[in-house]
Amino acid sequence: MIVNKKVISRLSRYRKSLLKFKDLGFVKVFSDTVGEAIGVTSVQVRKDFSLFGISGNKKGGYQVDSLIEKLQTLLGKNHAQEVIIAGVGNIGSALIKYKNFENEGIKIVAGFDVDPAKINRKLRVPVLPISEMKTFASERGIRVGLIAVPDIAAQEVFDQMISCGIRGILNFAPIRFRGAEDVIINNVNLQIELENVIYFVNAMEKQQKLKCGDNA
Amino acid sequence: MIVNKKVISRLSRYRKSLLKFKDLGFVKVFSDTVGEAIGVTSVQVRKDFSLFGISGNKKGGYQVDSLIEKLQTLLGKNHAQEVIIAGVGNIGSALIKYKNFENEGIKIVAGFDVDPAKINRKLRVPVLPISEMKTFASERGIRVGLIAVPDIAAQEVFDQMISCGIRGILNFAPIRFRGAEDVIINNVNLQIELENVIYFVNAMEKQQKLKCGDNA
Repeated sequence: MIVNKKVISRLSRYRKSLLKFKDLGFVKVFSDTVGEAIGVTSVQVRKDFSLFGISGNKKGGYQVDSLIEKLQTLLGKNHAQEVIIAGVGNIGSALIKYKNFENEGIKIVAGFDVDPAKINRKLRVPVLPISEMKTFASERGIRVGLIAVPDIAAQEVFDQMISCGIRGILNFAPIRFRGAEDVIINNVNLQIELENVIYFVNAMEKQQKLKCGDNA
Repeated sequence: MIVNKKVISRLSRYRKSLLKFKDLGFVKVFSDTVGEAIGVTSVQVRKDFSLFGISGNKKGGYQVDSLIEKLQTLLGKNHAQEVIIAGVGNIGSALIKYKNFENEGIKIVAGFDVDPAKINRKLRVPVLPISEMKTFASERGIRVGLIAVPDIAAQEVFDQMISCGIRGILNFAPIRFRGAEDVIINNVNLQIELENVIYFVNAMEKQQKLKCGDNA
């Protein structure tokens, strides 16, 4: 079964919308309602669900409770997911405080940094020296890490995480890692995301100017 | 010409790698060198460049300087891009301080928030009441905005930005906007990005356990 990132992103969004439907008192939902909530067609919804053996009933739709339960299991939501973060600068600190992670059962259990001024073991999410990352992650059985260090330090931190037994990384440093077989890497490049918006806005305005020129 | 997000992301990455080649003293580069630097094939590089009328020379490759200049123009890098941000919480503050934007000629010129405690006109990047956003953006001719407000406030902020003349949005709130024709929206959903990593790590470990079971 080929499951790609987009499918899993949709499962996350289906789950969130179903929790809202449940709050609103829904017991059953149809694929078109779910599709509309997240902006995809009902065909897409049924296709995605059927990939994981979830089937509805043409007349009755899907049972909200059982659907939520299945999605929770698929997304690993039935137990808290502990993750660590390397780099406690601007972005790293913001991620540690980011409430949407905790609301979703994802817990950042520690931050790691090279800067002695940032080390603080007494915080709710302690910030520890990066030299302790390996022991910490091994002992706690951490499998997922976030990287929010400057790009020149990122490859070294990546290597350390891999040697800790970490198998999945959400990376905010604008680099591509070497030696990344058997590791799930998701790159979030904020600068490229913003550049993309700027490019398309400029392109759109250029086109509109051309159109206005035609009318003159 | 159909230009999608992925092509533009690659242009950004080509440009960054070319700046590095230039620093290293390169005068010419070949498509395979550029491709290797950003992890795509040489065929992809030539295809992307040809979309914008950039052609190399089979023997001599591409001229680094002229290639950089063309990419700068395409990406709107020949003048600073002024953007604003709504929501100066954890993520918003981190974005204001994010050095990689400024290094790339993108300047966040003001933040806007509803919380009076956050307003501070004396900062290098002033934080202003959100009620002033419309006037500020119109006067400065701002075309691009970042949204980092809580999800319940996001649609209202979006509507305000659109009415300010903003045409492109980088959105960190986990919602999909209504009424978004003719507006470029790029959604960064950090929670879904992290959930994705967690899903694939769990799936990989389940598979490995199954395999070990087979061997037992």
